[in-house]
Amino acid sequence: MRLRIDLSYDGGDFHGWAAQPGLRTVQGEVEAALATVLRLGEVTTVCAGRTDTGVHARGQVVQVDVPDHVDPEGRLLRRLNGVLPLDVRVRRVAAAADGFDARFSPLWRRYVYRVTDAVPDPLARGYVLAWPRPLDVEAMNAASAHLLGLHDFASFCKQREGATTVRTLLGLTWARQDDLVTGTVCADAFCHHMVRSLVGALLVVGDGRRPVAWPAEVLAAGTRDPAVTVVPPHGLTLEEVGYPPDDELAARAGETRVRRESP
Amino acid sequence: MRLRIDLSYDGGDFHGWAAQPGLRTVQGEVEAALATVLRLGEVTTVCAGRTDTGVHARGQVVQVDVPDHVDPEGRLLRRLNGVLPLDVRVRRVAAAADGFDARFSPLWRRYVYRVTDAVPDPLARGYVLAWPRPLDVEAMNAASAHLLGLHDFASFCKQREGATTVRTLLGLTWARQDDLVTGTVCADAFCHHMVRSLVGALLVVGDGRRPVAWPAEVLAAGTRDPAVTVVPPHGLTLEEVGYPPDDELAARAGETRVRRESP
Repeated sequence: MRLRIDLSYDGGDFHGWAAQPGLRTVQGEVEAALATVLRLGEVTTVCAGRTDTGVHARGQVVQVDVPDHVDPEGRLLRRLNGVLPLDVRVRRVAAAADGFDARFSPLWRRYVYRVTDAVPDPLARGYVLAWPRPLDVEAMNAASAHLLGLHDFASFCKQREGATTVRTLLGLTWARQDDLVTGTVCADAFCHHMVRSLVGALLVVGDGRRPVAWPAEVLAAGTRDPAVTVVPPHGLTLEEVGYPPDDELAARAGETRVRRESP
Repeated sequence: MRLRIDLSYDGGDFHGWAAQPGLRTVQGEVEAALATVLRLGEVTTVCAGRTDTGVHARGQVVQVDVPDHVDPEGRLLRRLNGVLPLDVRVRRVAAAADGFDARFSPLWRRYVYRVTDAVPDPLARGYVLAWPRPLDVEAMNAASAHLLGLHDFASFCKQREGATTVRTLLGLTWARQDDLVTGTVCADAFCHHMVRSLVGALLVVGDGRRPVAWPAEVLAAGTRDPAVTVVPPHGLTLEEVGYPPDDELAARAGETRVRRESP
């Protein structure tokens, strides 16, 4: 039986999602908690978005295959949260629908980057970047609009051998609420460092150091531009992963696998 | 010259506001930063609300008397924030109006207590209490309404010899936004443990373990009731301190001093 587990975590004290020997990782904590609670020797999880060191999540989705006798309802959620450290919380556990694949079934991932251009709120300093210059949200939105759609985002990604950097950027918008500026980024999937590089290019538009047209020029150039900064991880949170209706989960996973492996 | 300094802090790593030898306190950090930046041997601050260990602030107000040559505008705010640790931020510095007294001039203090009755958000765990039972916000508001006005709050206060526990509760309301329940408490001033005791009495009404009438009965009894729990400090934040117009600052301070010292 496959379980779907919805997770939140504060990434501040983790070396990212992916398990690494000798390092504290979210995957390591979650697999250890599952092994303890389900009395299994070893457990392997797969997540929807492999967050980097310091990146947070409110809507991470994880799958794990467990013996059929496990009861996904009942006390499993409470028992997992009883064993997990307080910087990781299970929001929901349920039997996954047939064909569900946490990594390949999603239609989209939504991340939010939070930044303030005023004196930072100490209570939010773990998840809001402090930016030392005033930000023009209208300029950032104008620049963002030119990046939407299907593109090769190689200019904004850390390349991996044999993996495509073609993605569909479904949404990229900025909003201000008092001193807090939030960028909401939605795509079918993201390549490594893509959100933080996009945000880095847009913040320097926002503070007036680059023109509105610059991020689109970087995108069109098709090669990584050293002038684009990868902003710090602590402003970034994986907020939500969108899946298709149950009867389309398997087909979507199949399509994604093929596309992701085409160069 | 008297300076007015508006401060925010994350109380999580502080032994409260008040300086104590050998302990990390907000007052200790602020006075050390002022002494460094202003090159003064010793500095004494007075605040509007002496927050306990673990209590946060977004709207703390502090006064400090400095030599007349100090420039309150200019780079003082930036220099203080450059020296202070990241869990304390100066939001504003200015010369105080004549008659300004951070502690005795206020008309009211506003605190917010934050609590969730769902799976806690790990990113907010430093300032939101996790409550294990569902909360009925309407019941909490009904119970709160009976506590408003001028009363002797001895039942909800840690007594201090020779100090009055008579206060005017100006507002006490609860609101839910998704999983977050916030209690906003406003009074001319608070005695020790008053907000956290009021919240403790109201949360057990909210989760159905006490009737709506119970907090008012505790208030009327006039003595501290061991059934009232002082809730943990980390859910509590001093959000704002309200002062009268400048020409009433001195008169208000005079009245408050007299009232506070009457038994």
